[in-house]
Amino acid sequence: MVAQLEGFYDVVHRRRDVRAQFTGAEIADGVLERILASAHAAPSVGLSQPWDFVLVRDETTRKTFWDHVQQERQEYAATLEGASAELFSGVRIEGILDATLSVVVTYDPARGAPSVLGRHAIDDAGLYSVCLAIENLWLAAAAEGLGLGWVSFYRESFLAELLGIPRDIRPVAWLCLGPVSDLESAPDLEHHGRRSRLPIEEVVHEERWEDRAGASGS
Amino acid sequence: MVAQLEGFYDVVHRRRDVRAQFTGAEIADGVLERILASAHAAPSVGLSQPWDFVLVRDETTRKTFWDHVQQERQEYAATLEGASAELFSGVRIEGILDATLSVVVTYDPARGAPSVLGRHAIDDAGLYSVCLAIENLWLAAAAEGLGLGWVSFYRESFLAELLGIPRDIRPVAWLCLGPVSDLESAPDLEHHGRRSRLPIEEVVHEERWEDRAGASGS
Repeated sequence: MVAQLEGFYDVVHRRRDVRAQFTGAEIADGVLERILASAHAAPSVGLSQPWDFVLVRDETTRKTFWDHVQQERQEYAATLEGASAELFSGVRIEGILDATLSVVVTYDPARGAPSVLGRHAIDDAGLYSVCLAIENLWLAAAAEGLGLGWVSFYRESFLAELLGIPRDIRPVAWLCLGPVSDLESAPDLEHHGRRSRLPIEEVVHEERWEDRAGASGS
Repeated sequence: MVAQLEGFYDVVHRRRDVRAQFTGAEIADGVLERILASAHAAPSVGLSQPWDFVLVRDETTRKTFWDHVQQERQEYAATLEGASAELFSGVRIEGILDATLSVVVTYDPARGAPSVLGRHAIDDAGLYSVCLAIENLWLAAAAEGLGLGWVSFYRESFLAELLGIPRDIRPVAWLCLGPVSDLESAPDLEHHGRRSRLPIEEVVHEERWEDRAGASGS
């Protein structure tokens, strides 16, 4: 395999969802710009580019969001019992206060409307485009040796109000970003024994859907 | 910049949404496996890995889908007038019959349920995970020198029935994949003068949402 290909796959497989390893160190000049340019180079339905990126460094804003996330964590914890509850109590879910900054990614359905090519039959296609940009951002961070963690323990309405996001723009992700002490070699939930990665054979089908006992709901 | 980083960014910026350049040639041994392994290595909420990949090579299946896409294209075309209609008449929207194969990607909300960590507040987080896998797949294809095109002119119910996808599994994407004669240097819709890429300054905000006249709905 040529070196470029090996390097690319190394990034894909090295990328992790980071919670605990952020150092808070500054990001070197030019790095954040390259990472954001990667996100902005993502494919989008009808070239609508319906994403925005809000860079949040302010400590008060982050503390307010962190408080909200702790409430949501407690709410979720209250739905668990026994072994699940115990396991979750040891799982870290975010690095909001430790990471150098956060990047909030949003979706604007009005951008490029009314005639967004390819969205007439599948309205969610615009939302899908935003996620493609997030993965570009995530991989670019890994390529640069930075860590990224997607926080999803929050209510969209809370985040929208916190950042003054207009009613017709949807928050899609709160991403913690910055230098890390290291990237773990396996997903955090695998370390905790909560989940394991599925063999790829279980998720690949030939020609038509093939039922796989055990994959769904396992 | 180190070589690995340059190589990674080259892939990100070289990736295109391909419609017209598929050659239909065979894919070399091992390549499809590496591309699918990239998709399967994507991050997912609560490590739920809620994606499946249906590899479609059968010509009858592809022709049936292609016929449906032509109908949807006509339906969309009928909503356009004047210059928009004329521009669209020259825009190619898919390479279903030309590409070596198609990969249909689906979302299974039941995988890992009921307690998917991080999905209690944001139900769409599982759907987002599937899109992250699609972008990994897309970039890996570009890294391998293959083309990929996302077709979104179809009804989900039609595709589900065509491939025997169960009612509780949602089709997310029909992707055409295979060797190409070349990758264009700019998005197809830019060539056609329908859209242009936004300056990145228009989509980056500091600390809070900042209104940008012209970005939304432009």
